[in-house]
Amino acid sequence: MSKVIIVGGVAGGASAAARLRRLDEKAEIIMFEKGEYISFANCGLPYYIGGEITEKEALTLQTPESFHGRFNVDVRVLQEVISIDVNKKLVRVKNLKTNETYEETYDKLLLSPGAAPAKPNIKGGDNEKVFTLRNIPDTYRIKDYADKRHVKSAVIVGGGYIGVEMADNLHAAGLKVTIVEFADHVIAPIDYDMACEVHNHIRSKGVNLILKDGVKEIRDQGEQLKVILGNGEIITDMVIMSVGVRPESTLAKDAGLEVSPKGAIIVNANMQTSNRDIYAVGDAIQIKDFVTGDDGYIPLAGPANKQGRIAAENIVGISSTYKGTQGTGILKCFDLTIANTGITEARAKELNLNYEKSFTYSASHASYYPGAVNMSIKLIFDKDSGKILGAQIVGYEGTDKRLDVIATAIRAGMTIYDLTELELAYAPPFSSAKDPVNMAGFVAENIMTGKVKNFHWNEVKDLPRDGSVSLLDVRTNMEYENGSIDGFMNIPLDDLREKLHILDKSKPVYVTCQIGLRGYLACRILEQNGYECYNLSGGYRLYNTIYY
Amino acid sequence: MSKVIIVGGVAGGASAAARLRRLDEKAEIIMFEKGEYISFANCGLPYYIGGEITEKEALTLQTPESFHGRFNVDVRVLQEVISIDVNKKLVRVKNLKTNETYEETYDKLLLSPGAAPAKPNIKGGDNEKVFTLRNIPDTYRIKDYADKRHVKSAVIVGGGYIGVEMADNLHAAGLKVTIVEFADHVIAPIDYDMACEVHNHIRSKGVNLILKDGVKEIRDQGEQLKVILGNGEIITDMVIMSVGVRPESTLAKDAGLEVSPKGAIIVNANMQTSNRDIYAVGDAIQIKDFVTGDDGYIPLAGPANKQGRIAAENIVGISSTYKGTQGTGILKCFDLTIANTGITEARAKELNLNYEKSFTYSASHASYYPGAVNMSIKLIFDKDSGKILGAQIVGYEGTDKRLDVIATAIRAGMTIYDLTELELAYAPPFSSAKDPVNMAGFVAENIMTGKVKNFHWNEVKDLPRDGSVSLLDVRTNMEYENGSIDGFMNIPLDDLREKLHILDKSKPVYVTCQIGLRGYLACRILEQNGYECYNLSGGYRLYNTIYY
Ligand SMILES: Cc1cc2nc3c(=O)[nH]c(=O)nc-3n(C[C@H](O)[C@H](O)[C@H](O)COP(=O)(O)OP(=O)(O)OC[C@H]3O[C@@H](n4cnc5c(N)ncnc54)[C@H](O)[C@@H]3O)c2cc1C
Ligand SMILES: Cc1cc2nc3c(=O)[nH]c(=O)nc-3n(C[C@H](O)[C@H](O)[C@H](O)COP(=O)(O)OP(=O)(O)OC[C@H]3O[C@@H](n4cnc5c(N)ncnc54)[C@H](O)[C@@H]3O)c2cc1C
Ligand SMILES: CC(C)(COP(=O)(O)OP(=O)(O)OC[C@H]1O[C@@H](n2cnc3c(N)ncnc32)[C@H](O)[C@@H]1OP(=O)(O)O)[C@@H](O)C(=O)NCCC(=O)NCCS
Ligand SMILES: CC(C)(COP(=O)(O)OP(=O)(O)OC[C@H]1O[C@@H](n2cnc3c(N)ncnc32)[C@H](O)[C@@H]1OP(=O)(O)O)[C@@H](O)C(=O)NCCC(=O)NCCS
Repeated sequence: MSKVIIVGGVAGGASAAARLRRLDEKAEIIMFEKGEYISFANCGLPYYIGGEITEKEALTLQTPESFHGRFNVDVRVLQEVISIDVNKKLVRVKNLKTNETYEETYDKLLLSPGAAPAKPNIKGGDNEKVFTLRNIPDTYRIKDYADKRHVKSAVIVGGGYIGVEMADNLHAAGLKVTIVEFADHVIAPIDYDMACEVHNHIRSKGVNLILKDGVKEIRDQGEQLKVILGNGEIITDMVIMSVGVRPESTLAKDAGLEVSPKGAIIVNANMQTSNRDIYAVGDAIQIKDFVTGDDGYIPLAGPANKQGRIAAENIVGISSTYKGTQGTGILKCFDLTIANTGITEARAKELNLNYEKSFTYSASHASYYPGAVNMSIKLIFDKDSGKILGAQIVGYEGTDKRLDVIATAIRAGMTIYDLTELELAYAPPFSSAKDPVNMAGFVAENIMTGKVKNFHWNEVKDLPRDGSVSLLDVRTNMEYENGSIDGFMNIPLDDLREKLHILDKSKPVYVTCQIGLRGYLACRILEQNGYECYNLSGGYRLYNTIYY
Repeated sequence: MSKVIIVGGVAGGASAAARLRRLDEKAEIIMFEKGEYISFANCGLPYYIGGEITEKEALTLQTPESFHGRFNVDVRVLQEVISIDVNKKLVRVKNLKTNETYEETYDKLLLSPGAAPAKPNIKGGDNEKVFTLRNIPDTYRIKDYADKRHVKSAVIVGGGYIGVEMADNLHAAGLKVTIVEFADHVIAPIDYDMACEVHNHIRSKGVNLILKDGVKEIRDQGEQLKVILGNGEIITDMVIMSVGVRPESTLAKDAGLEVSPKGAIIVNANMQTSNRDIYAVGDAIQIKDFVTGDDGYIPLAGPANKQGRIAAENIVGISSTYKGTQGTGILKCFDLTIANTGITEARAKELNLNYEKSFTYSASHASYYPGAVNMSIKLIFDKDSGKILGAQIVGYEGTDKRLDVIATAIRAGMTIYDLTELELAYAPPFSSAKDPVNMAGFVAENIMTGKVKNFHWNEVKDLPRDGSVSLLDVRTNMEYENGSIDGFMNIPLDDLREKLHILDKSKPVYVTCQIGLRGYLACRILEQNGYECYNLSGGYRLYNTIYY
C-alpha cells in the first residue's frame, strides 16, 4: 500500500486527491491544507463580496468531513507543511491550531501550494485598510470591513482579471471605485487596441480608471486612506492590491527542487519535479506555453485541475502527459465579456514572430432575430502557415462561445483556413449562417491570400494629408457626418463604381468604413480597377474606440 | 469578360454572387430567382409567424436593388430558369410577370435552387388550410390565415427542426398545438434517448405530442379540418406539413446532370456537377458526410453559404474544396436548446460501426454562481481510436457553446482523449474549471480505458430480479425514497465502504445513482474490492426521463 501526501487542498490538490482515490482505493492519502477550508471556489470570491453569491456555503465545494466521507482521504486543515526531507522522504508539518510540529513519511508527494498575491514594496502597503484576495478568510475580511465601516470608496491597484472583477463587484456593492493600472491598458492577456473598448466600458459605469500610473505610498488620512500616485493622489476608504501572484515555492526551493528564475517549480510533462517522487501542479509551477513552446507562468484554475488529475495518474503509474497551457482566460467586466486564448500581438512582437492579425466585428446571432449584439474579435496568426496563435474577443452574449471554439482550434493546431470551414451550429437565436468565427477566418484568409492589403489604426495619424495619397471613407453620408477621421473624404460604397474618376489612379488609396467590411469591398473594386489601395483594419469603429 | 449565371437568389446563390463579384469585378453576373424575394432569412420565417420577429423588412437581408447597388449583379426576380442547354451553354428563362420566355448564355452556371417541402401523398393534403413553409409568401400566407381567421389550433405534421420550431412559434402566438410524428421521437438527428427530455419539455408546455402515428387523411369539418391518424383523429383549424424537403433538381436532371437516387445533384469537392461548367450548391446537392465519408443529404444554411463561397472561388479559377458536411444543427424548442453534430448512435448502428457512447449531465457554469442549469451530453465515439463521431446536447444556457466546441473537435479529427485536454475559458459566470466538454471527455476516457464498465437504460428491465445479481442505488436515502428503479436496494455512496459486507462478492453488482457520477465512484470502490460491477450510464435521471 502506497502512501501519498498532498500539500494544498484546493484546485490542484483536491482534484488530484479525488482522482487518486478513484485510481487506487487502497492508497493512504493525506491532504494537508494550511488554511481552514479545502476545495473552495477561489474564482467565486469576488462575487461573494459583490453580493452576487449570497450563501457562504456556496464557496466551499467540499468540507474536510465530506471529502473524507466520499474519498477516504485524511484531510488535515490548519496544518502547514513546513519542510520536506527528500532523502528520508518525509514532510515536517506544523499544526497551526496547537503550534506542534510532526513528521509524515511519503512514497509520493504532490505539491499544489498555489500562489500568493504579490505585495509590492509600497510604503504604507501594510496598512490594515489595504487588502489582498486569495482565500475565504481574505474574502470575509474585505466584506466585513466594507459592510461594517459602511465603506463608500475603494482603490484597486492592478487592472488584471482579479482587479477588474473586484472593480465590477465593489461597484455592484455600491462603492465608488478607482482602478490604478501601471500599464497602458487593463487585462494584460489582451492587447491595447482590444482593451480600449474595455476602458470605455469601465468608465461608462462611473469607475475612475487611471492608466500608466502607479502607487507610491499609502497614508492614513483620518478614517480614510490617502493613496499617492506618481501623478496625483486619491482619498479612499480602502485599497485592494491585485498586482498579480507569485508561486508559493519556498517549500520546494528549500527542499532543493528546481525552480525557475521567477520562483515557479519546474516540472516535466508528467508533472514530476526534479525529484522523481515529488510532483507539483497548479499556480506553483512553470508551464510550457502551448503555442510557443516556451517556458511560462499561467496560473489558472482549469490547468490546475487538469494537472492535478494528470499527476494522480502518474503517481499510480499510468503515464499521462500535460501538453502545455495556452492561457485561455475570460472575465465578466460589468456587462462586457472579455476572453482570450493563445498569445497576444504584443507577445508575438516580443518573440519576433512573423505574424498577421485580423479584426472583425460580428453579431452574436442572426441580426434579424431580436437581441443580437456585436463582438470584436482579434485574431493573431502565423504569416506563413496561417496557424492560429491567439485570439481576443470583447463583447456580450456568445463571446465565450467563439473564444472556446478558437481555443479548441488552437489545441488542434488549426489554421485560419480551417476556421472558414468550421461547421458551427446555426439557428437564428444562436448564430449566423456564417458564424463570427467563420467570418474571422474569411477575413484572415483574404489577408493571407492577398485579396486585400490592410493598414492599421496606429498608422492613421502618419498618413500624408498633403494630397499625395487619397484618403477615402466609404460609409454613407450620414455615418460620415456623425464623425469621421480627419482628412478622409466621403464616397459611399454603393456610389464608388460610378465615382471612380474622382480618385487619381496614380495615388494610393487608403480606405475606411465602419468595421472594415465595406472598406474591403471598396478595395476589391479599386484594386481591380488598377488602384493601389489599403483597407483600415477594424474600420472607424476600432479607430474611434481607441481614440475615443 | 466571363458571364456567370446563378439560379436561386438566397443562401447559396446570393453568397456565391457576392463572393464572385469580390473576386471578379469585371464578370457579368446574372442571378435568377423565381420568387419575389432574394437573400431572405429562411431560418427566421417561423419567428416572424410566432411574433418574435416583428418587422417584415428584417426577413430580407438584401433587395434586388440593394444587391445590384452593392455588387453590380443583375438580379432578376420572378424569373424562373426552366431549362438548361448544356451544349449551347444557355438557360431558358420564364419571366413569371409576363409569362414570356427567353434565353441567356453562360460561361459558367451555378445552381442553388434549394429544396422544396416534401408533400406526402395524403388524401386532402391539398386542402387550402394545409400549409408548408419555405419562403416569404408561405410565411405571410400562414400568418395572415392565422391572424384573420383567429385560428385557435394547429396540427403540425412532422417533428423535425422546422416542425418543432413551428410548434414553439404557433404556441407562442397563442395556438393550441399538436405535433404528429411518425417516428418514435422528434428531431431525427438526435437519438431516442436524448429526445425523451425534449418530449417531456414539449408536453410540459401544453403541446399535444403524438409519436409513432401518421396522418392518413385530412377532411373539411365545417370551418375546421379533421385530421385522421392511423390511430385517432384531431379537429383543428389548420395543418402545417413539415415532413422534410426534397432537392429541387428537376432542372438539373432534365439537363442530364448526374443526380443521386434521392434526386440530389451530385458534385465533386469543387462543387462541380457532372458538367464541368455547371456548379451546384446548397439544399439541392448531395454531400459527403464528413464523419463517415458516405454520400448524404444535409440541407442546412451554413453549408449552403460556404458552398456558395467555394463555388465562386472555383468559378474564377481559385481551386477551393468543400470537405463535407457533418450536420451540425441546433434549435430552440421553447426554453430548451437542442443541438447535434456528427452522427447519431442510430446511424452508427446502421453502419455497423464499432462505437461507444457516454452520457453526462453538467452545469452550464460554476454551480456556486447563480443561474447554473444542467445540460445532457451524449457523445458517440470510435471504440478503438476514441475518435469522436457525434454529439448531442439538450439543455439551456451554454448548450450551443459546448456543441460548437465538439463540432470543432470533430472537424479537427480529435478523440475523446483530446476533449479531456481542451483548455476552455473559465470564470464562474461562464463555465467550470472542468468544462462540461472536458467532463464528457473524462467519462468517455474512463470507459475506453476500462476504469468502469457501463450498462444502459434499455438494459435495466432485463436485469434479473431473482437475487442472482445485486442491484444497487448509491444515492442518498432521500433521493432514493423520492423514486427509484424497481428492484434496486439503497446504500448511499458515502456509506459504501463500511457496508461492503452486505454485498455478495460472487454476484455482479449493477449500480445506479442520479447521473452516473456517484455510480462511477461506487464502481471504482467495488471493483478494487473484488466485485464485478457495472454503472448505469446517465443514471436514474436519464432512465427516468425516458420512462417518465
Ligand atoms: C480571487 C480569485 C479569482 C480567481 N478567478 C479565476 C477565474 O475566474 N478563472 C481561473 O481560471 N482562475 C481563477 N483564479 C485562479 C485559480 O483560483 C487558481 O489558478 C487555482 O486555484 C490554482 O490552484 P492551486 O491548487 O495551484 O492553488 P490554490 O487553489 O490556491 O490552492 C493552494 C492551497 O495550498 C495551501 N498551501 C500552500 N502552501 C501550503 C503548505 N505549505 N502547507 C499546507 N497547505 C499549503 C494554500 O493555503 C491554498 O489553499 C482566481 C484566483 C483568485 C484568488
Ligand atoms: C422555415 C425554415 C427554417 C430553417 N431554419 C434553418 C436553421 O435554423 N438553420 C439552418 O442551418 N438551416 C435552416 N433552414 C434551411 C436553410 O434555409 C437552407 O439550408 C438554405 O436556405 C439553403 O440554401 P439554398 O441556396 O440551397 O436554397 P434556398 O435558400 O432555398 O434558395 C433557393 C432559391 O432558388 C429559387 N429557385 C429554385 N429553382 C429556381 C429556378 N429554376 N429558377 C429561379 N429560381 C429558382 C427558389 O425560389 C429559392 O428562393 C431553414 C429552412 C426553412 C424553410
Ligand atoms: C471538486 C474537487 C474536489 C474535485 O473533485 P472531482 O471528484 O475530481 O470532480 P467532480 O466532482 O467534478 O467529478 C469528476 C469525476 O467524476 C466523473 N464523472 C462526472 N460526471 C460523470 C457521469 N455523469 N458519469 C460518470 N462519471 C462522471 C469524471 O469522469 C471525473 O472522474 P475522473 O477524474 O476519475 O475521470 C476539486 O476540483 C476542488 O476542490 N474544486 C474546488 C476548487 C477549485 O477548483 N478552485 C478553482 C476553481 S473555483
Ligand atoms: C448576405 C448574403 C447576400 C451574402 O453576402 P456576403 O457579402 O457574402 O456576406 P456578408 O455581408 O456576411 O460579408 C461577408 C464578406 O465580408 C467580409 N468581411 C466581413 N467582415 C469584415 C471585416 N470586418 N473586414 C473586412 N472584411 C469583412 C468577409 O470576408 C466576406 O467576404 P469574402 O466572402 O469575400 O471573404 C447572402 O449570404 C444571403 O443572401 N444571405 C441570406 C440568405 C441566407 O443565408 N439564408 C439562410 C440563413 S437564414
